[in-house]
Amino acid sequence: MSNFWDKYPMLKEDLEMVKNIMRKSVKCNEKLIESALLDLIDSGGKLLRPAFLLLGGRFGYYDQKKLCSLGATIEMLHMATLVHDDILDDAVLRRGSQTIQSKYGKNYAVFMGDYLFSKCFMLLSNNTSIENMKMLSKAVSRICAGEIDQFASQFNQNVSVKKYLKRIGAKTAALFSLSLYIGAEESGCSKKLASKLGRIGYNIGMAFQIIDDLLDYTGDEKVVGKPVGNDLKQGIYTLPLIYALESDKGDIRRMLSKPLCYEDIKNIVKLAKELGGIERARALAKKYTDKAFKDITSLPDGEAKVILMEIAEKLLVRDY
Amino acid sequence: MSNFWDKYPMLKEDLEMVKNIMRKSVKCNEKLIESALLDLIDSGGKLLRPAFLLLGGRFGYYDQKKLCSLGATIEMLHMATLVHDDILDDAVLRRGSQTIQSKYGKNYAVFMGDYLFSKCFMLLSNNTSIENMKMLSKAVSRICAGEIDQFASQFNQNVSVKKYLKRIGAKTAALFSLSLYIGAEESGCSKKLASKLGRIGYNIGMAFQIIDDLLDYTGDEKVVGKPVGNDLKQGIYTLPLIYALESDKGDIRRMLSKPLCYEDIKNIVKLAKELGGIERARALAKKYTDKAFKDITSLPDGEAKVILMEIAEKLLVRDY
Repeated sequence: MSNFWDKYPMLKEDLEMVKNIMRKSVKCNEKLIESALLDLIDSGGKLLRPAFLLLGGRFGYYDQKKLCSLGATIEMLHMATLVHDDILDDAVLRRGSQTIQSKYGKNYAVFMGDYLFSKCFMLLSNNTSIENMKMLSKAVSRICAGEIDQFASQFNQNVSVKKYLKRIGAKTAALFSLSLYIGAEESGCSKKLASKLGRIGYNIGMAFQIIDDLLDYTGDEKVVGKPVGNDLKQGIYTLPLIYALESDKGDIRRMLSKPLCYEDIKNIVKLAKELGGIERARALAKKYTDKAFKDITSLPDGEAKVILMEIAEKLLVRDY
Repeated sequence: MSNFWDKYPMLKEDLEMVKNIMRKSVKCNEKLIESALLDLIDSGGKLLRPAFLLLGGRFGYYDQKKLCSLGATIEMLHMATLVHDDILDDAVLRRGSQTIQSKYGKNYAVFMGDYLFSKCFMLLSNNTSIENMKMLSKAVSRICAGEIDQFASQFNQNVSVKKYLKRIGAKTAALFSLSLYIGAEESGCSKKLASKLGRIGYNIGMAFQIIDDLLDYTGDEKVVGKPVGNDLKQGIYTLPLIYALESDKGDIRRMLSKPLCYEDIKNIVKLAKELGGIERARALAKKYTDKAFKDITSLPDGEAKVILMEIAEKLLVRDY
């Protein structure tokens, strides 16, 4: 288990339960599938989405078993999209471990991801209402549309800020939002409170993704766990670059028009800094962060509120 | 619409409705996704699974709208697996049209398939019980496990008949079975009748897949719609070969141990015939077909029974 949760032993314990449910749920006769998925489960992800779901639940009547199962569902869904995402990215490493696509091949990765999806819906059908099932399916379709859009926009120098925000909303913030919402909703919170928590999740998700994208420009490879400039190389143009391109005098565009070498990436990162792209992206992340903080402040007092605030700070107020 | 259903205008009309529901359900802002999926829907598949679901429904109280929606769900689920399946096979053509993976690339195909999955669960959550949802998720996980097993068994000369049957049971028969079962179950048929229809679907599915695999050895390329010997070339060893290998004196094994040229394929097909592999596979298909026919005969009389029998004959009693 990630030491991210050390300060919150109860939450950490429940996240262990989430992991156990996931482990049980990928058990199957095909040992190849099982061991690949167990590796994935044990690869030390933070389990952010289930943690948010559990925290949402703390604002109502907390049914540990049900919420942990739902948390497992959400994480498995996220894992399924990661497995497929790594195919698109040709990624070799994820969380410091070898990806399924690089270890077993893309073909395996396709059906391992599908298998996870199906297991996730199986688990879900034991633990939730049709209504939540519908919302979760919708979230998956948004994530897929976001991924396809990202792919369709590869190497497109004219991606707008609006389009970028829509994409990360679909691909990241929607599931953060749903996690907090479903946790609250399944615990009998009022619609109003559940919606507010959903909004908090959305804003945290947006800030989180912008910061993640920033790290591709400003991060330290050893800390981030993946090579810096990776998005750029793959033609995935994120906020710092989109902003920088707005004031580019042609230098960046010229470099982007052909395959990038190491020097180019260093130069583009430098230009993104000089042209204010990084600063503006940071400012937008801060805007989402502030919105989230403001909403958190207005939540009913209690331990869950304190933890949510601390986690948001830990995730969003970091060196980037 | 395929002319396969010309003899049954009512069924044909309902299958048109199934298609319309599918068309509506893939509508989305990303025009790229939408047009790719509309092409797929209109590529002239027979819609066998929804047809079975509708026929199952005819044995009870037939709720056209609900059953057509469920039929659309089942077909979309099948389409999603086809989209992903084509990635594994590097397939260029499917039903005579270009596959998504060959037209848009594997990366698109991954998330287009996922998108279809999610849309399928969204549609499903509007039209069925949690119980059926669970069964359908389970069917998907079986299909995935079947696909992964097929992939893991590639170029393995020691695949047993038992393992082959398990694989096609998972990858094909399970969904045929579920289609008839869910149609009946959602229409208020008794558990006994629904289970019998499920069994009929299973046996039809098994026979159907064995025959499909036989066509790789005996078929006419122009009629089958895909190149003969395709499975063989890809190292997918199906029943005719598995049987033939049982009496092989080393000739087939020798050829299989290196990449196959056109001559090799011709020779293997010839040997599979001479060693009785094709005949034995035909006999097993007939056994499943007979089981299905026997169960159909014992169904309550009526138009649905007649149509089911005729379709089973059309599918299973053909030149192969």
